[in-house]
Amino acid sequence: MEKFEVNILGCGSALPTSKRFTTSQVVNLREKLFMVDCCEGAQILLRSSRLKFSRLNHIFLSHLHGDHCFGIPGLISSLGMLGRTGDLVIHGQADAQKIFKPLLDYFCKELPFTVRFNTINPSQSEVIFEDRSLRVHSIPLKHRVPTCGFLFEELPSKGHLIGDMIKFYKIPIRQLEQIKDGADFITEHGELIANSRLTTAASAARKYAFCSDTAYSEKIIPYIQGIDLLYHEATFRDADAARAKQTQHSTASQAAKIASMAQVKQLMIGHFSARYPNPNILLEEAIAIFPNTVLAQEGLVCRM
Amino acid sequence: MEKFEVNILGCGSALPTSKRFTTSQVVNLREKLFMVDCCEGAQILLRSSRLKFSRLNHIFLSHLHGDHCFGIPGLISSLGMLGRTGDLVIHGQADAQKIFKPLLDYFCKELPFTVRFNTINPSQSEVIFEDRSLRVHSIPLKHRVPTCGFLFEELPSKGHLIGDMIKFYKIPIRQLEQIKDGADFITEHGELIANSRLTTAASAARKYAFCSDTAYSEKIIPYIQGIDLLYHEATFRDADAARAKQTQHSTASQAAKIASMAQVKQLMIGHFSARYPNPNILLEEAIAIFPNTVLAQEGLVCRM
Repeated sequence: MEKFEVNILGCGSALPTSKRFTTSQVVNLREKLFMVDCCEGAQILLRSSRLKFSRLNHIFLSHLHGDHCFGIPGLISSLGMLGRTGDLVIHGQADAQKIFKPLLDYFCKELPFTVRFNTINPSQSEVIFEDRSLRVHSIPLKHRVPTCGFLFEELPSKGHLIGDMIKFYKIPIRQLEQIKDGADFITEHGELIANSRLTTAASAARKYAFCSDTAYSEKIIPYIQGIDLLYHEATFRDADAARAKQTQHSTASQAAKIASMAQVKQLMIGHFSARYPNPNILLEEAIAIFPNTVLAQEGLVCRM
Repeated sequence: MEKFEVNILGCGSALPTSKRFTTSQVVNLREKLFMVDCCEGAQILLRSSRLKFSRLNHIFLSHLHGDHCFGIPGLISSLGMLGRTGDLVIHGQADAQKIFKPLLDYFCKELPFTVRFNTINPSQSEVIFEDRSLRVHSIPLKHRVPTCGFLFEELPSKGHLIGDMIKFYKIPIRQLEQIKDGADFITEHGELIANSRLTTAASAARKYAFCSDTAYSEKIIPYIQGIDLLYHEATFRDADAARAKQTQHSTASQAAKIASMAQVKQLMIGHFSARYPNPNILLEEAIAIFPNTVLAQEGLVCRM
């Protein structure tokens, strides 16, 4: 199976601590890297990981609270000093460009690459990025400021040709692409050779969703139904549910309830309040509702 | 002796690494805290230290390169969430306000304190802050962008009254301030009691200078002559002197030469390039010229 994994850089909320940075993660699909949110210190966490910064071409910003984006100027400045090349695209709402463009213009005058801003509308779900292997949709979330999550949808790879069969039937090169796409082959004697005899099946397309920050909202369920991995914020424990409601965040139980209703395969919880030095109490509350839950932590790599 | 110390938060240059943040330090004079420069992550380093963030009221920015100021929005945002009160003053050149005010307006709408900007002109030496115990002067430095260092000058404290003598001569309360200031006392019988019999001497006024970033420049010597502690940047070793010149930084030997010519009591070197995982080679080169040199490192507290 080709690589599709989530690398947690930071998973705290609001206030970073000496033990926990705020929110940033990197989705790695076949060694192409996509950063989701960029907390203060993200550049340090990225370089401490084994991820190759030269393969990072896209940054997605869920919303414009500092704990999700204060690392942007430092990251981009350092990527410039490290000699990274190739356009870098920041996908975020209109204010992201308004805020960060002047900073980059001032502090990063001689970047060896161009930073482009792709403006997204967080109030609706739309396809905000697509290439041959990946499609990224936005997911409207419910928070104090406009916020969206992101669904990373691997695109089905084509079938793999079975070399011996291609040789045996002397299939012309010009027909190979059609066969990868699923076409059958008809020999010169008129015999039909089913595609299933010529190819091995394409691997299943996997899906990962990042949903932070958000109050409990069943509206997100249609977007995440049956996906392989859901990252859902779990800022508070049940005992602090009133505070969760007030700040439009979720409790661990609420995250688990969403995971259960959406029948996802696995749940990862994160965005823990600094009031919990040990977030295991959040894990326990989530597991009681949705057993296949893992706790985000710095350096965790979650494979799909 | 009352407390006067420098707390190193970060002491690297340009590129932070997993082992070394860039530049930020806190001067602590009698439990009043003054931050000098504010690297990305400074808020985390401050909170990991034993310094009380509630006692931080002034931030001095030497220049506007990212490795010296990217931590400003995160620090101020977190100080707000932690409920700090009282005005916070950022002393920096005019562009500091132009850059950071819009960020604070956007990200820190509900701060429980006011952030004021005190504009300084980095091309001349001037008194930029003064209270009863401290005077801060700027020191023009030589760098690729306008940059200044800072001289922290403790103001002489008044003499301490000797309680038994005050009682013995029945000195009226209204005269005590004059006596603290050095006045003699004349009894009702016309006897002159020398001030030295009524007070213990004021402690000596100490001086600390922060000089980073700067190329080698003997012009700073008059400002730092004979001071107690000089922090001077030492970005490169001698072998990389050409690179130091090109980027308008100093070598460790150059920092030591300045310390020696200015006859300072102690030198601390910092702002090490990330190319030296172990900065002891810089220390060795400095010590060869100025023996009383220490190496800045995260968490170091240097007392005067």
